[in-house]
Amino acid sequence: MKAAYYEGNETIRIGDCIRAAPSAGQVQIRVSHCGICGTDLHIFHGKMDRRVHMPQVMGHEMSGAIAALGPGVDGFAPGDRVTVRPLDPCGRCPACHAGHSHICQNLKFIGIDAPGALQGLWTVPVHTLHRLPENLSFAQGALIEPLAVACHDVRMGEVREGEYVVVQGGGPIGTLVALVARSKGARVLLSEVNSYRLALARDLGIDAVDPRSTDLVQLVTDQTGGAGADVVFEVSGATAGAEMMTRLPRTRGRIVVVALFPDPPAVDLFRFFWREIKLTGARVYEAADFEAAIRLAASGHLPLDRIVTHVIPLEQLESGFREMERGGKVMKVLVECSRD
Amino acid sequence: MKAAYYEGNETIRIGDCIRAAPSAGQVQIRVSHCGICGTDLHIFHGKMDRRVHMPQVMGHEMSGAIAALGPGVDGFAPGDRVTVRPLDPCGRCPACHAGHSHICQNLKFIGIDAPGALQGLWTVPVHTLHRLPENLSFAQGALIEPLAVACHDVRMGEVREGEYVVVQGGGPIGTLVALVARSKGARVLLSEVNSYRLALARDLGIDAVDPRSTDLVQLVTDQTGGAGADVVFEVSGATAGAEMMTRLPRTRGRIVVVALFPDPPAVDLFRFFWREIKLTGARVYEAADFEAAIRLAASGHLPLDRIVTHVIPLEQLESGFREMERGGKVMKVLVECSRD
Repeated sequence: MKAAYYEGNETIRIGDCIRAAPSAGQVQIRVSHCGICGTDLHIFHGKMDRRVHMPQVMGHEMSGAIAALGPGVDGFAPGDRVTVRPLDPCGRCPACHAGHSHICQNLKFIGIDAPGALQGLWTVPVHTLHRLPENLSFAQGALIEPLAVACHDVRMGEVREGEYVVVQGGGPIGTLVALVARSKGARVLLSEVNSYRLALARDLGIDAVDPRSTDLVQLVTDQTGGAGADVVFEVSGATAGAEMMTRLPRTRGRIVVVALFPDPPAVDLFRFFWREIKLTGARVYEAADFEAAIRLAASGHLPLDRIVTHVIPLEQLESGFREMERGGKVMKVLVECSRD
Repeated sequence: MKAAYYEGNETIRIGDCIRAAPSAGQVQIRVSHCGICGTDLHIFHGKMDRRVHMPQVMGHEMSGAIAALGPGVDGFAPGDRVTVRPLDPCGRCPACHAGHSHICQNLKFIGIDAPGALQGLWTVPVHTLHRLPENLSFAQGALIEPLAVACHDVRMGEVREGEYVVVQGGGPIGTLVALVARSKGARVLLSEVNSYRLALARDLGIDAVDPRSTDLVQLVTDQTGGAGADVVFEVSGATAGAEMMTRLPRTRGRIVVVALFPDPPAVDLFRFFWREIKLTGARVYEAADFEAAIRLAASGHLPLDRIVTHVIPLEQLESGFREMERGGKVMKVLVECSRD
């Protein structure tokens, strides 16, 4: 079994997987597929060198089958098909005590703060496991984690049937947010600048426009009878997105900030006052979001397979990163981790 | 009866009140007291010359007694003691249809978009009236409008008993927000830079600190067992306030933006993501907030009289503005409008 090690300086080394026998409370998984997340690309680019521990095994969007159980672990058996909710909260901080353990103040994110899934055999705490139904392929199973992000975002946005939703940014997460919001019965408009992603969204039946050539405020105003959007998801992370997000909502409309803004952008607080707009940040997911994502994926109603543009062997991980860097005809890249 | 006319260029002319007999749906009020709001000072400084119609009678924080009823008005009688909720919504826009008529998309704010209360006799729509109980003085009655703002803000912030609340800015509204939050059973910390306002807040029993000499983040962290504040009210309108507001809340804590920010400040959206913080804008009030303010004032539990630092005759309105400009030992300035 192999593992992909990030060694700094945009370098990935493929080496042998370090086989750690699972200890009490742990399971060892034979990893089937692992998706590459924007965060992994960020790590690859050296932006998180102070947080990761090199050589770092990345990866947290995965599927696989249990290979071995640690002492005392029950409720699972070798061969069980699972995905992992890669959060390891401390259980002792004020956030954990308040019931927000998914954003624990000392959260270990497995795949960043601990070794990740881009390897053949991966050992994780048993509390992170969710079962995959038989009718989901391993490739689909590796999409559960980003789909759970989208389910969490839509839940935080309290999207209701018949509402008008704008999603700013049509990468994998934005596209999944659009699909999940649509599954709630919302009317969805996606805003995206990349022509490949625009075309893909339209292929998936999502109304999608380029905000550089379409007057988004006018369009949303027209389509909502002058009211404005019920909910805006800011998934672009762009300064222009932070500017646009406050111009679209109706009175008491909602904004969900999904994207990461490393630098504080200018935000029109007057507009929040004027229309009593609400904003919430949304980060990762809770157990219920994983279960919702699994149900939604298993329902077969989402065109999940269409999100996957590349499936590559572990040995080609670096080329996967390069493909994402180029930002061409790429949406989700899946890595086969135990093809041997 | 006199009226104070704003004629542009920081000029107030005292002239005769234009007596308009109330038409259908209107009442004429003999105005007793009218408070000066920061918005009035803003108008006086020429910042809203494009919105007001000169000569403009300002003023919207008032108390008085009904002088005359228009045709067909019932439910009120001459002599009834009232205050006015100075909002005149269109009733036809999407915000009105959604039940948000207080932030109607075509809202007329009486005192800005229509003549205000800084005159002896004032004619307003009957739907704006709220009765003042006998145990409230007219001076106290003129504080109902800003108190209703505070009640609205605290309601929008969903402040609950036992919560830890930070109020940024200790002017009249910030101080009232602190008092209303305390009346809900919250523990309140006020942050203010003006030494007079700090001392006044402390006199009122409010825990108050100067954020230039106290490490606010450390203090709030210490006082909340490392969790952070449940609710932060941003009432300062300062860039430093916009920066601080995101550093104080706990996971899923709330920020209420009360202040007006004419220019979009830098806002740390990453912090919203990281702690799943929620923000809401809060503007003016709804009828329920006026009723809550009247009940709270009539309960006698708030030290409302202590907020009033100056009571001046209408003829001295300009000196009242100058006093507010200097920003010394001034909190709320009340104007006697029909003392003759």
